[in-house]
Amino acid sequence: MEQPREKRRKEQRDEMSRSDRKKLKEARKQDVKRLKELEFLKKLEKQRAAEEKAQKDLEGKKEQKGRLYTVSVAIPGSVLDNAQSPELRTYLAGQIARACTVFSVDEIVVFDEQGEDVKSIDGEFRGIGKKGQASVQLARILQYLECPQYLRKSFFPKHQDLQFAGLLNPLDSPHHMRVNEVSEYREGVVVKRPSKPNKGSFVDCGMRKGVQIDRNLQAGLRVTVQMQKNENSESKVLKGTVVAPHAPRTESGLYWGYTMRLASCLSAVFTECPFSDGYDLSIGTSERGSNVDSVTLPPFKHLLVVFGGLQGLEASVDIDQSLTVTDPSILFHHYLNTCPGQGSRTIRTEEAILVTLSILRPKIDTAVGRSTAP
Amino acid sequence: MEQPREKRRKEQRDEMSRSDRKKLKEARKQDVKRLKELEFLKKLEKQRAAEEKAQKDLEGKKEQKGRLYTVSVAIPGSVLDNAQSPELRTYLAGQIARACTVFSVDEIVVFDEQGEDVKSIDGEFRGIGKKGQASVQLARILQYLECPQYLRKSFFPKHQDLQFAGLLNPLDSPHHMRVNEVSEYREGVVVKRPSKPNKGSFVDCGMRKGVQIDRNLQAGLRVTVQMQKNENSESKVLKGTVVAPHAPRTESGLYWGYTMRLASCLSAVFTECPFSDGYDLSIGTSERGSNVDSVTLPPFKHLLVVFGGLQGLEASVDIDQSLTVTDPSILFHHYLNTCPGQGSRTIRTEEAILVTLSILRPKIDTAVGRSTAP
Ligand SMILES: C[S@@+](CC[C@H](N)C(=O)[O-])C[C@H]1O[C@@H](n2cnc3c(N)ncnc32)[C@H](O)[C@@H]1O
Ligand SMILES: C[S@@+](CC[C@H](N)C(=O)[O-])C[C@H]1O[C@@H](n2cnc3c(N)ncnc32)[C@H](O)[C@@H]1O
Repeated sequence: MEQPREKRRKEQRDEMSRSDRKKLKEARKQDVKRLKELEFLKKLEKQRAAEEKAQKDLEGKKEQKGRLYTVSVAIPGSVLDNAQSPELRTYLAGQIARACTVFSVDEIVVFDEQGEDVKSIDGEFRGIGKKGQASVQLARILQYLECPQYLRKSFFPKHQDLQFAGLLNPLDSPHHMRVNEVSEYREGVVVKRPSKPNKGSFVDCGMRKGVQIDRNLQAGLRVTVQMQKNENSESKVLKGTVVAPHAPRTESGLYWGYTMRLASCLSAVFTECPFSDGYDLSIGTSERGSNVDSVTLPPFKHLLVVFGGLQGLEASVDIDQSLTVTDPSILFHHYLNTCPGQGSRTIRTEEAILVTLSILRPKIDTAVGRSTAP
Repeated sequence: MEQPREKRRKEQRDEMSRSDRKKLKEARKQDVKRLKELEFLKKLEKQRAAEEKAQKDLEGKKEQKGRLYTVSVAIPGSVLDNAQSPELRTYLAGQIARACTVFSVDEIVVFDEQGEDVKSIDGEFRGIGKKGQASVQLARILQYLECPQYLRKSFFPKHQDLQFAGLLNPLDSPHHMRVNEVSEYREGVVVKRPSKPNKGSFVDCGMRKGVQIDRNLQAGLRVTVQMQKNENSESKVLKGTVVAPHAPRTESGLYWGYTMRLASCLSAVFTECPFSDGYDLSIGTSERGSNVDSVTLPPFKHLLVVFGGLQGLEASVDIDQSLTVTDPSILFHHYLNTCPGQGSRTIRTEEAILVTLSILRPKIDTAVGRSTAP
């Protein structure tokens, strides 16, 4: 029993010529094709828009994320001489490195309080070649700790200054990467492994595989590598680009450890500044400084915070032959007491670093227009 | 040649009778006498006013000078177990004592993270009687350092926990007096030297001479003595009055070291509080706390700041059997990240004390209405 409607359709179909049916079929095919093309174009457009947005986001983030200012800390190497045993001497250096890392210090300057031409006239003879020993040892331990563990064998041969390095607490800063950690940047050392010419050297970045970089460099160089994102983590070769050591900070706002330099006296801390315009804000610290609570810091590019040794900055100024002033406060934009009402008669330098950087932290954030408060 | 005016006066004088002149003289004498009396009275009045003013000033100063609030710090004894040698274990305890002294902490509570009933099920067997060893050693070193050097021989017999005490940096707090230092108060120990009945015991206050106090006390007691001002410093006997240990703080606003107590678990830090009304402000510290920069502290009488160990306060809360919460932030009025944006993955407890107390210092001063800013 056929339904009336079905019957009509069958009649119509039968009425259509074969060629008509063929034409119709062809037209429909074309429609579908056009539609598919259109969809494809839309998809392409969407994709491009997404890519553009991602790119913009990235740039926006980069601008916002990058940190252009720096914080430097200067300390006299003589602070090590206050330690009561070789172990504690090493430990003290470690305390300084950690205090600076906790507060993301970018540069540590170790200056010699003794000056160059000073001859010890009272006190015991310290032996030829031993002058400045404290500064050099402090510097070496600071550099040792800053170096990621997997690179130490390449850069720190056994040395007496590092005899008790086993007692040091790790810095645990963001550039001390674990083997499997995923990171935009990694510190590495160029290895000897031969690579085809114009193919780029291999770098040991503390991962299971070496990283092939974008150029050929001499083996033994320490480099900062920007890792190429690998969709396929199983790919045979990890690739990366060598960037400036400051890129993780200036591009992505990461804290990337500190650089270290030695200065032969207090004035050399200023005169040998690695930034072309020098430090545009300097702070001296002393219990005789003015109260830190009443100070607002101005915007700055390169901040320097200077600490004294056992005898304070007055002693460093007295000894420095290129300085004619005797009042250290004249040397700095601010001369601050960072712990008003202190409960101990003296604060040790290694303590003063934590105390000072902690109270300066929100003031620095405000000065550079960086608020950590939610 | 006499002048006309002189001439006239002479004539007038001649005209006055002798009795008149006598009367006049007498009257003048009386005038002078009255004047002198008046002057004397005025002087007396001035003097009394000055005395009254001085008295008021003194009282005012005392009111202003006395400090009625206290700051307590609590730390798990287990922090000592993070040290890498027996010497560094001792040194770490010293760092904690110094950090608390620099910020005039009045009470240190050492709590046991292990709790009482916890049996170590994994990890090595620590040996009978060794449980809680870290807390007891930390406590002992804290007390040893707090004790003025001249009293240590009386209160600290040789002990293994103090084997490396020679490496400890002195606290150099105001109650650690030098021999010749003049001070309103001194810490001392009652000595055996016999004194006549009702004449008061002698106390060794670390001066060349003993101090006779206002009462008879058992030899060996540690006492806080308010020194009697001696106009004659050559007088044979120095005299003083025994006062409450908190008098230097509450009467004169001096920082007078810390008291120490042990707590068997985190909750006992609160429940065994020595202040009758408990701690009216408590702060827990953690990198997962809220940003310290956005916090204002309310006025308080007794502030408690609590630090965690290697595993943080979360671990202390987990282990504490009398606590049902798992989120430590519920236990405190504030749960604070005191180092936002830290440059190291972890801040060690001994570092966190300096960092935290430094950033809290101005907030505490504001809360108690005590401005150190000029
Ligand atoms: C042992 S202290 C120097 C003490 C020395 N007797 C003096 O009077 O300056 C070592 C260093 O710690 C820092 N320091 C100590 N107390 C400080 C305070 N209240 N404010 C700022 N810096 C302080 C200073 O850099 C000082 O040079
Ligand atoms: C080694 S840390 C504990 C780290 C532990 N893994 C954690 O996640 O809590 C030891 C103690 O230092 C203090 N601390 C460390 N970082 C801190 C921060 N950013 N703010 C406040 N306190 C901190 C806390 O009291 C903490 O319990």
